[in-house]
Amino acid sequence: MSDAVKSKSTLTKLNALTGNHQELWTGEYYNEGIGGQGGLFDKLNEECGVFGVFGHPDAASLSYYGLHALQHRGQESAGICTADKDNFNYHRGMGLAKEVFTNEMLAPLVGSNSIAHVRYSTAGESKLANAQPLIFKYREGDLALATNGNIDNAAIIRRNLEKQGSIFQTTSDTEVLAHLIARSKHDDIVEAVKDALGQVVGAYAFLILTKDKLIAALDPNGLRPFVIGKLGDAYLFASETCAFDAVGGTYLRDMNPGELVVLDRDGFHEDRFAEGGKRAVCAMEYIYFARPDSDIDTINVHSARKRMGKKLAMEAFMDADLVTGVPDSSISAAIGFAEQTGIPYELGLIKNRYTGRTFIQPSQELREQGVKMKLSAVRKVVEGKRVIMIDDSIVRGTTSLRIVNLLREAGATEVHVRITSPPFMNPCYYGIDTPNRKELIAAQKTVEEIRVAINADTLHFLSQEGMVEAMGEGAQGEASGYCMACFDNKYPTEIVDEAKIGCGCD
Amino acid sequence: MSDAVKSKSTLTKLNALTGNHQELWTGEYYNEGIGGQGGLFDKLNEECGVFGVFGHPDAASLSYYGLHALQHRGQESAGICTADKDNFNYHRGMGLAKEVFTNEMLAPLVGSNSIAHVRYSTAGESKLANAQPLIFKYREGDLALATNGNIDNAAIIRRNLEKQGSIFQTTSDTEVLAHLIARSKHDDIVEAVKDALGQVVGAYAFLILTKDKLIAALDPNGLRPFVIGKLGDAYLFASETCAFDAVGGTYLRDMNPGELVVLDRDGFHEDRFAEGGKRAVCAMEYIYFARPDSDIDTINVHSARKRMGKKLAMEAFMDADLVTGVPDSSISAAIGFAEQTGIPYELGLIKNRYTGRTFIQPSQELREQGVKMKLSAVRKVVEGKRVIMIDDSIVRGTTSLRIVNLLREAGATEVHVRITSPPFMNPCYYGIDTPNRKELIAAQKTVEEIRVAINADTLHFLSQEGMVEAMGEGAQGEASGYCMACFDNKYPTEIVDEAKIGCGCD
Amino acid sequence: MSDAVKSKSTLTKLNALTGNHQELWTGEYYNEGIGGQGGLFDKLNEECGVFGVFGHPDAASLSYYGLHALQHRGQESAGICTADKDNFNYHRGMGLAKEVFTNEMLAPLVGSNSIAHVRYSTAGESKLANAQPLIFKYREGDLALATNGNIDNAAIIRRNLEKQGSIFQTTSDTEVLAHLIARSKHDDIVEAVKDALGQVVGAYAFLILTKDKLIAALDPNGLRPFVIGKLGDAYLFASETCAFDAVGGTYLRDMNPGELVVLDRDGFHEDRFAEGGKRAVCAMEYIYFARPDSDIDTINVHSARKRMGKKLAMEAFMDADLVTGVPDSSISAAIGFAEQTGIPYELGLIKNRYTGRTFIQPSQELREQGVKMKLSAVRKVVEGKRVIMIDDSIVRGTTSLRIVNLLREAGATEVHVRITSPPFMNPCYYGIDTPNRKELIAAQKTVEEIRVAINADTLHFLSQEGMVEAMGEGAQGEASGYCMACFDNKYPTEIVDEAKIGCGCD
Amino acid sequence: MSDAVKSKSTLTKLNALTGNHQELWTGEYYNEGIGGQGGLFDKLNEECGVFGVFGHPDAASLSYYGLHALQHRGQESAGICTADKDNFNYHRGMGLAKEVFTNEMLAPLVGSNSIAHVRYSTAGESKLANAQPLIFKYREGDLALATNGNIDNAAIIRRNLEKQGSIFQTTSDTEVLAHLIARSKHDDIVEAVKDALGQVVGAYAFLILTKDKLIAALDPNGLRPFVIGKLGDAYLFASETCAFDAVGGTYLRDMNPGELVVLDRDGFHEDRFAEGGKRAVCAMEYIYFARPDSDIDTINVHSARKRMGKKLAMEAFMDADLVTGVPDSSISAAIGFAEQTGIPYELGLIKNRYTGRTFIQPSQELREQGVKMKLSAVRKVVEGKRVIMIDDSIVRGTTSLRIVNLLREAGATEVHVRITSPPFMNPCYYGIDTPNRKELIAAQKTVEEIRVAINADTLHFLSQEGMVEAMGEGAQGEASGYCMACFDNKYPTEIVDEAKIGCGCD
Repeated sequence: MSDAVKSKSTLTKLNALTGNHQELWTGEYYNEGIGGQGGLFDKLNEECGVFGVFGHPDAASLSYYGLHALQHRGQESAGICTADKDNFNYHRGMGLAKEVFTNEMLAPLVGSNSIAHVRYSTAGESKLANAQPLIFKYREGDLALATNGNIDNAAIIRRNLEKQGSIFQTTSDTEVLAHLIARSKHDDIVEAVKDALGQVVGAYAFLILTKDKLIAALDPNGLRPFVIGKLGDAYLFASETCAFDAVGGTYLRDMNPGELVVLDRDGFHEDRFAEGGKRAVCAMEYIYFARPDSDIDTINVHSARKRMGKKLAMEAFMDADLVTGVPDSSISAAIGFAEQTGIPYELGLIKNRYTGRTFIQPSQELREQGVKMKLSAVRKVVEGKRVIMIDDSIVRGTTSLRIVNLLREAGATEVHVRITSPPFMNPCYYGIDTPNRKELIAAQKTVEEIRVAINADTLHFLSQEGMVEAMGEGAQGEASGYCMACFDNKYPTEIVDEAKIGCGCD
Repeated sequence: MSDAVKSKSTLTKLNALTGNHQELWTGEYYNEGIGGQGGLFDKLNEECGVFGVFGHPDAASLSYYGLHALQHRGQESAGICTADKDNFNYHRGMGLAKEVFTNEMLAPLVGSNSIAHVRYSTAGESKLANAQPLIFKYREGDLALATNGNIDNAAIIRRNLEKQGSIFQTTSDTEVLAHLIARSKHDDIVEAVKDALGQVVGAYAFLILTKDKLIAALDPNGLRPFVIGKLGDAYLFASETCAFDAVGGTYLRDMNPGELVVLDRDGFHEDRFAEGGKRAVCAMEYIYFARPDSDIDTINVHSARKRMGKKLAMEAFMDADLVTGVPDSSISAAIGFAEQTGIPYELGLIKNRYTGRTFIQPSQELREQGVKMKLSAVRKVVEGKRVIMIDDSIVRGTTSLRIVNLLREAGATEVHVRITSPPFMNPCYYGIDTPNRKELIAAQKTVEEIRVAINADTLHFLSQEGMVEAMGEGAQGEASGYCMACFDNKYPTEIVDEAKIGCGCD
Repeated sequence: MSDAVKSKSTLTKLNALTGNHQELWTGEYYNEGIGGQGGLFDKLNEECGVFGVFGHPDAASLSYYGLHALQHRGQESAGICTADKDNFNYHRGMGLAKEVFTNEMLAPLVGSNSIAHVRYSTAGESKLANAQPLIFKYREGDLALATNGNIDNAAIIRRNLEKQGSIFQTTSDTEVLAHLIARSKHDDIVEAVKDALGQVVGAYAFLILTKDKLIAALDPNGLRPFVIGKLGDAYLFASETCAFDAVGGTYLRDMNPGELVVLDRDGFHEDRFAEGGKRAVCAMEYIYFARPDSDIDTINVHSARKRMGKKLAMEAFMDADLVTGVPDSSISAAIGFAEQTGIPYELGLIKNRYTGRTFIQPSQELREQGVKMKLSAVRKVVEGKRVIMIDDSIVRGTTSLRIVNLLREAGATEVHVRITSPPFMNPCYYGIDTPNRKELIAAQKTVEEIRVAINADTLHFLSQEGMVEAMGEGAQGEASGYCMACFDNKYPTEIVDEAKIGCGCD
Repeated sequence: MSDAVKSKSTLTKLNALTGNHQELWTGEYYNEGIGGQGGLFDKLNEECGVFGVFGHPDAASLSYYGLHALQHRGQESAGICTADKDNFNYHRGMGLAKEVFTNEMLAPLVGSNSIAHVRYSTAGESKLANAQPLIFKYREGDLALATNGNIDNAAIIRRNLEKQGSIFQTTSDTEVLAHLIARSKHDDIVEAVKDALGQVVGAYAFLILTKDKLIAALDPNGLRPFVIGKLGDAYLFASETCAFDAVGGTYLRDMNPGELVVLDRDGFHEDRFAEGGKRAVCAMEYIYFARPDSDIDTINVHSARKRMGKKLAMEAFMDADLVTGVPDSSISAAIGFAEQTGIPYELGLIKNRYTGRTFIQPSQELREQGVKMKLSAVRKVVEGKRVIMIDDSIVRGTTSLRIVNLLREAGATEVHVRITSPPFMNPCYYGIDTPNRKELIAAQKTVEEIRVAINADTLHFLSQEGMVEAMGEGAQGEASGYCMACFDNKYPTEIVDEAKIGCGCD
């Protein structure tokens, strides 16, 4: 989402005091960041997750369980839209899927086709109006859209549309797509979608629902994960395979870059809207975002992480008393590191599972007295020990510093930090909420300077080659099919707008 | 709102089970219809209320109290939008103003200019997305709109816009206006608004907020009430004067038909977007909708109602033991009738004040056993008595029948019904939710047939002449300045779409 | 409830922010005081209401509608307990009956016998733990109790019980009754209840539910209203007859002073626990508390009020341009006054129906600018007029002053205040929340001094004789059967504890 | 809580539909059982957790963070009571600490001494009235109590008290204690507490708050964990040391069996109410209940579990492709097993972190289609592999069967189950919610029969000797200081009531 369209008009606040449902909120939203992931305060923020069903009588319930499995990809809002003959039935709300949906909410969502969405966004843009699926009416009827990703030239297209008199109700990139579809000269929705996608540049897994069709599209570089599954005769779409497991479905294949799949009463149609290039799936999905039990491009995420830990041990072995991982995302890698080195894996850090959005932050005073919210070091385990601490990435460095200090305060005599990815130096324009380059510690400092900044005894980043080797070969059979622009500055698309840093869901 | 754009896509349901704010609801919405008004089940439904502030530091709080005073005009949703330099701050929710807003909700609504809205709508269209003020972004910035009324040619304009590729998120006429403004060739907002209003036909009190302007407009026939007030140096706008009393403001004058008032940093500018014809303010506002302490066109509503009761006594006197009014709207008229005739006014019917939206409807079984929800006849008062029952109108006749029967079950020996308006025979296209002609009992039956249908001993409707005389002369000095199309079929505008029957807020 | 047992331990606050149910609250509880009553800020506060059902399969639903009809007697908490063979099913919550109960809440309340309660209390004691029915377990099983009234010697009994090692969970008088029942040497519940009631002094309408019995008792002076009704074969009990009308039941008779009615599988048993003296029902019930459509001791409340207005006109006629009543409790009297004098009744004051517990109070600043919450004077009606303003009582005088000033600010040239009761000079120990004598303006000042204090042109209180005559003869056939201690200091019981001033529900 | 006092009177249901706080609920409470623990459906249920503060200005906030750290010990209700000079301030609610408390709720809880509680209970007894701390008034003032544990002879004492006329409002054992204290002949609270504890038999960690004292007591066998800590000058008490870490406090020592600690303005007083025998701390705390970062009797729980895994590997090694643990409680042991054997530890099972109380259970139909709620097997990891699955215990066997089947459905060729404790054969009477003996699979079947029942290829339970060796020597220096009655039927107290099986918090 471009700065150009950012608005601070959403300063109102969620409040259930009145027992009412409320529209907007803002402010001190606690960026949870839990999930299958680490989720401390300067971690990268997850993007969004999408889920689609075509041809199952329980489409809404399946969507609920699908979103629940994809919850780690976005905790801010959740929504489901079903198509029931001539009508759309939908419900969206702020919060986790389990908070937004009750049986009473799901009951009216009849219909056997559906699309669904969980969303993460930066606090300023946290508002229900941006919650997806977005629903629009246009000349051919109703249209529901759900996207995971980011359209890089959205601001340019938007300004152009505004010049022609278009009005917008959200700050979401997805609304731009809806306008392009509605303005297409093609009446046929499939052609109109192709037309629209032809005008946008970016990374996206995209689901469109009409009263009788479900359309799925993946960007021409296959930057975002997007998989097709089956459940009986029904077809499923999801950001990650773990959502298929959750509903008892089976994995069919990954969507291909530039591919358009159309489902209608005549069945499953494979189509394209763009020349599909080599897949360049986001490496951070393997490193940090995806759930460990998901497979991306046929590679299991936990296994990839464990191999990263082993690679890291080969690249940067050192003797120590124990290995510990920052929960949850680095546990797999830490176990790999321990297995490779023979140094025992221990529970040096523990995360409180009950922390969440509604948790009261301790006051500064209490924090200084040592009140901890979420992550604790286990004194009995680390006291007097030389600790190897495995983490997945360093963004601003503030979190790493905090965790190293937690370990030291608990009595660790040495803390050696090992990172399962290369230095993170470049912002992402493809749907990951990253700070701008000035705030990225690896863009500003050398490895030694970072080591000092985070108070570690030693620090080592996994090499890019090691990382690629650890991730391994996907279905397309090429080990290099990754977007690693955040590490190597090689963006698979032309970057239209350098200023553009956003959540990517919008 | 036209049938053409009606959608049943909003079948999801409000539910606060999760403690969450929720977006949509539908279904068994209990059409409250309380207020200063009678509000039984086949009563006409109130429309909407608007409130605007320009130049007061507490704009949002004043709006809250203003909406509270206008609550009888719409209980479904409430919303306030303030302009604070470059930003809009807004909050909208389903329910009463007191339910939607808490101190925590009002606090972020900073800014000294604001527009606000309470809304009534038919159940099928009860959804938060339609709650006003509507907020749009267009090439010149942010735009907030709030309307009371109905655009008669909205469906035609909408189809035309859709052909040009416009997309819609609501079913509201107000969104049509926003599109027309955004598509105007004029960059200047005032010119663009004039341009837009030039294309629409209907009845509307219209408020537009930009970051530095507040614009108010009244339709060329002045069909809806709309008044200007002052509070210190600040300007106020409201659907009814009671909102000025509630905030300590003073009445300045009524908006004129076809008038456009613009407030900006240079002050108060009077302008026009249309030739202002003779005011034709809705007669039902005097009869039923407006609060008795409001003045419309300088005429006090309670006083007008009392005069209607007196006129009715003159036209259709009959001896009886007591006069009673259907609460709340017919109390004033009943007192007038009693005063004129010397027959004592008694509390023959009583309304439970605590009934409201969240009230559980009794089951059919309990209803048959006599469980009453809202209105009771007072046995001790009516038993063995000949009762004159004053009501404001008969729509379908079902409510009148129920009340007559309540009185008879409580022991009334005779029930003589006196109605303070002429037979209601024609649907309203100007913002009142009326059933279509087939359901209007007076369009289908003679007075004698209606009398039989409602089980009254005698029945008399106030004559149109009597009604006009009772309402009296307004500020423009002409006793005939009313729209009485529902009685006499003389619509002040050309009716574009006979099929068009809607709430008028949409 | 006695000061001796008052505790400030309930400072926690209701908050639904978390979507959770919460136990306690305190603080800025908005003392609503709406209802069939006036309810401004220094009005007397309503007490409680009780409702019982024996032998109806829909006992819980009937209780819901019964409580709804009695809502004006207490808006703080509501509760229903049903007996279902061996089990009690109950639900209690803070707020109006319609807020506390949903279909989902009512569904598990199976059983054909029930007792129910609405409660008012002073803010400091507003807590769920005190909400009734109270449920206790004792040696003979479960026991549910609901009381309207006040036990004057509760503090003394309580201290005595504590000396013997009793522990208490509430500050409610009703818990004292439960202890006395449990400690009775009688195993039979009816004998145990008689035993317990023999030890207490006060005013109470009392309902007890066991797994197979419903017991009703009225204090020996019949101070509180308490009526018996029927619905088919089922028996009903209620504080007011309006609750019977609401559920389709019929009035059977009033409970007699000192009477105990026991319902069990063998039927309806009349019994006594005390010599029943002459009924001394609270006069304020007629003047202010009861709903106008209720009959107390066969006298209709609205009719009594209208007669009070007429009496007042006879005692203190004066010429004026209009009569107006303070809504809602004084409307009946104002109409009586107008009828008697021929001075027109007008709507000089209007109350906003939507004001309620969750309403945001205006800031002092806004209040000074004229923001009004609840009651407005109607300028068009009162401007330039000599107004007779009818009210039911003057407690501290602050409200009367505010209303007189509202009328003057709206342009009334003279304001003549007429009160439908004698000066209120003595606190109530029988279940009405009154300030202590120092705060009662009539206990401190002469009528002329009060007139000055409330800024009235003239002031007149109805004489005690006039009031008694207006109330009339009840079923017992004696016009003097009222408690008027608040006016004449003649308390029908010995007052044990002068310090005792409480809500009376506790 | 004894069957004798169990009541089904709490069938009412939690519902936030009205936006109201509600008192009770019942029914399909989803027994969450997440935490630091495993928490599948036939797992043992955690008991309760207590937390106390004496002498810190932020007592309530510290309690909030303390409860949060102890959340795994009870998710049903949470409560905090502070003592502020003469008043108690408290708040209790159903749900997690983060759901029950908001800043607005904590703010009024002023005072520097506090006790706090999280509670688990069986569904039938889930009600707010039972939420702790319980607050009582007795002759000496206010008293707040919080207990973790179970009083074995509570039903007997209760019947005795009832015979003497006592009434009860809860079904909690803690209320029995309050009665005993109130009925003690001693006026001094410390003596009265000793008196009361002298009459009870059971397992308990007990905190009492008066307006100026905090009293802590541990049962004579030290069955429940209970530790003392410091934070600056303030004293802390907690069920587990992890709560001290969470608030920045330091561990001082474990409470001793039979010890009574009294804190008042004169400081910290060590006392006894019983001869302290040998500590017999619950072995299941190490195996399953406690958080891995807690130390009990100076032994770290994670380390003990890892040693159990190693012991198990020594006792029952077998070759396989991978080791996996049932999350979360068996992860430590699985890593120990892997370390010992060299078989790789893999993420074969994954738990969805977002599942919780409000989660909608899938319908039977969807469950049969494979919809999973909480635990999934990772196909890519286990497919074609021989899996060693580590779990902490087998209760009914149904959960073990489900997990084995999950692994098989995901393609595991062999599943070898290893349990880190001996067969669970005897119910607990000391505060753990266990099924009765008939439902305990190990009490009914041989190991081989269990193996068949859970569909495992092999099954091995850790020997009792191995377990004791793994847990190791605590502060008292004796490796045998554990209660292992559930394994060896040697109960450290006389069992009064064989029928007695309850949650233990009551």
